[in-house]
Amino acid sequence: MHEFELIKKYFSNLSSYNKSSLDLNDDVFFDKSKKLVISIDTYIEGAHFIDFRYPGLVTKKIIRSSISDLICKGVNPKYYFISGSGNKKSFSKNNLKKISSSLNQEQKKYSIYLSGGDTVFSKKLSFTITTIGFSNKIISRNRAKVNDDIYVTGNLGDSFIGLKILKKKLNLSKILNNYFKKKYFCPEIYTNISKKLLSVANTSIDISDGLIADLEKLINKQKLSYILYLKDIPVSKNLKKLINLKKIKKQTCISRGDDYQILFTAAPSKSRIITKTFKALRIKVSKIGKICPVSQKSQIIDEKNKNITLKNKGYFHRF
Amino acid sequence: MHEFELIKKYFSNLSSYNKSSLDLNDDVFFDKSKKLVISIDTYIEGAHFIDFRYPGLVTKKIIRSSISDLICKGVNPKYYFISGSGNKKSFSKNNLKKISSSLNQEQKKYSIYLSGGDTVFSKKLSFTITTIGFSNKIISRNRAKVNDDIYVTGNLGDSFIGLKILKKKLNLSKILNNYFKKKYFCPEIYTNISKKLLSVANTSIDISDGLIADLEKLINKQKLSYILYLKDIPVSKNLKKLINLKKIKKQTCISRGDDYQILFTAAPSKSRIITKTFKALRIKVSKIGKICPVSQKSQIIDEKNKNITLKNKGYFHRF
Repeated sequence: MHEFELIKKYFSNLSSYNKSSLDLNDDVFFDKSKKLVISIDTYIEGAHFIDFRYPGLVTKKIIRSSISDLICKGVNPKYYFISGSGNKKSFSKNNLKKISSSLNQEQKKYSIYLSGGDTVFSKKLSFTITTIGFSNKIISRNRAKVNDDIYVTGNLGDSFIGLKILKKKLNLSKILNNYFKKKYFCPEIYTNISKKLLSVANTSIDISDGLIADLEKLINKQKLSYILYLKDIPVSKNLKKLINLKKIKKQTCISRGDDYQILFTAAPSKSRIITKTFKALRIKVSKIGKICPVSQKSQIIDEKNKNITLKNKGYFHRF
Repeated sequence: MHEFELIKKYFSNLSSYNKSSLDLNDDVFFDKSKKLVISIDTYIEGAHFIDFRYPGLVTKKIIRSSISDLICKGVNPKYYFISGSGNKKSFSKNNLKKISSSLNQEQKKYSIYLSGGDTVFSKKLSFTITTIGFSNKIISRNRAKVNDDIYVTGNLGDSFIGLKILKKKLNLSKILNNYFKKKYFCPEIYTNISKKLLSVANTSIDISDGLIADLEKLINKQKLSYILYLKDIPVSKNLKKLINLKKIKKQTCISRGDDYQILFTAAPSKSRIITKTFKALRIKVSKIGKICPVSQKSQIIDEKNKNITLKNKGYFHRF
C-alpha cells in the first residue's frame, strides 16, 4: 500500500476536524491563524541514507532534505529539531564532532537554529527532523490548473548517479565520482527563491521520491493529467557526458529521487516573470511540460516525439 | 555519558544564539514571541515500551508520555505529529486499526489533533512524537528556590510494578496484575491542572526517568540540594499492600520511571492554595520534601529518620 493510501485509510479521519493538517495530504502542516508551518521527516540508515561512513555528509543531506520541504512551499525554515536514535559507534565522540560541525555549517548557510530534540539508544540508526517556519501563506498541493506549465529547478539525476557510485555499482574518474557523490550528499537548496515562489506558483512539491512519483503526488486529489518532454528535463553537463557516452540512458536516471529540486506549476502568463526572477537569483529553472485535462492520458514524450513509459518512476512508499 | 552532558558538549553551542531552545536544557522549546511550545520524544521498542503485543495500549502510553512534557510546563497540547518506523508486521492492517482507534480515544480525552507525521519502513519499531501547544509563558526548569516545598502528583511506582508483571518477573492476582499493567500503559495525565500550575509552581518536570533522576535533572544548573521524606512519597493502596506483604520495598520502586506524574517546587506561602486547587480538581498532590542550600548534601530520609541511599535512582540516558 502506498504511504498516502495507508495514511488516508487509517489516519485521515483523525485529522478531519483539523484544517491545519491539510488532510495529511501535504508534506507540511500549516496553522494559518498562528502562521505556523511544520514539516517532519524520518531518515533510516540503509533506506534514506546509504550508511554512516560519512556522518558529516549524512547530516548535511538530512538537514537539506528537511528544509527543502518548507522552501518548496514558499516558507523559510527558522527552527529545526533532531531526534537521533543510534548506538555507541554511531554516536562516538568523533562522529558527534562531525555531526555538530556540519550542523554548524548548515545553520550559517540557511539561517536555521537547532532548537531541541532527543537522543536515544537503538541498534538501528535513524533521525527524525522537525523543521519550523512562519508564514502567512503557503503553496499547497493539488492546486494545479489545466494548461499550467510544469517547471523544475536545477538538474535531475546527479544524486542517483552519486548513489550508484557510493554503492560501487558505477565507477568513473575521480573528479566525476566526487562531483556526483557531492550531489547525492549536498543537494542545492534555494532559500532565496521561497518567497518569490509564493507569488508565481499554483502548486509545488520538492522532488524527494522521483520526478514522476512526486508529480503524481502533487496532483493526486485533482482530476488532471500531464505531459512531459524528456528533452526539456534538465540534467547537468557531467550527466550529459555520461548519457552521450551511453553509460546510462537519460530516462533511466531522471526520476529516481533524492534530487531535492522544486517541482511547480504556474499559469502560462507567469512565464516571463518566472524566467526573469530565477535569472536574477541565478537559479536554473526549466519548463518541462504542461498540466492537461483528465480526458488525456498522462504522457512522457521522448526526443523522437514518441510516448514512452519510464521503468523507474521513483519511490512509492510501501509497507 | 548522560544524555544532557552529551547534548551540552556537542550541541549546546549550536543553539546558543537561539533563546527559545532554553539552552537545550529543558524538555520543551518555547518561542515567547510566537507563544509556541514544542516537545519531541522518540520511543523505541524494547527501551521505551516493552514490545508491540498491545499496539493500542502502546499508542496510549506514548501519546500520554508526550503530552505530559507540555502539561507539566503549564501548557495544554493542541497538535501532535507521529512518525512511525516499522515493518509490515508492526504496521499490519489489524495493528493500524488498533493504533488509529487508540489515537481517536486519546484525541477526545485530551483535546488534541493529529496533524501530520511520517511512516517509514524499518526493521526496528520506533515512534517520534512531536507535541505542540500555545502559551504566553511556561514553567521552566532550574527555577527552584531554597526552602521551596517539593510536590508530586498522583502515585509513584505502580508503573514499575506493571512493567515487572509484563516482563513476567512478578505475578499477582488477576485483578492486581491488570491494575498495575494498566498503570504502566495508561498513566493519568491531568490536562486541567496545567494552567493552575503556572501560577503556583516555581519549577517543574514530569517524572519519566524516575523521581530522583528527574529531581536532579530539574535543578541541574542550580547550586541547590534537596531533602525527601520516604514516608511522604505517595504510593497507591495496591502498591502499599505489596509493600506490607514484603513483596517489594518502597524504596525499590518509587524512583524507577514511567510514572508521568508532575514533580514541582513552590514557595511555602503557596501551600494552602495548592492544597485547595488540587482538591477542587480531585487530583492527588503530596508534599514530599524541600529544596535546600547547596551547603547541605541531598538526602532521602526513611521512616526511622535515617538518611538512606536509593540503589535505583531512575534512568540516566547514556550512550
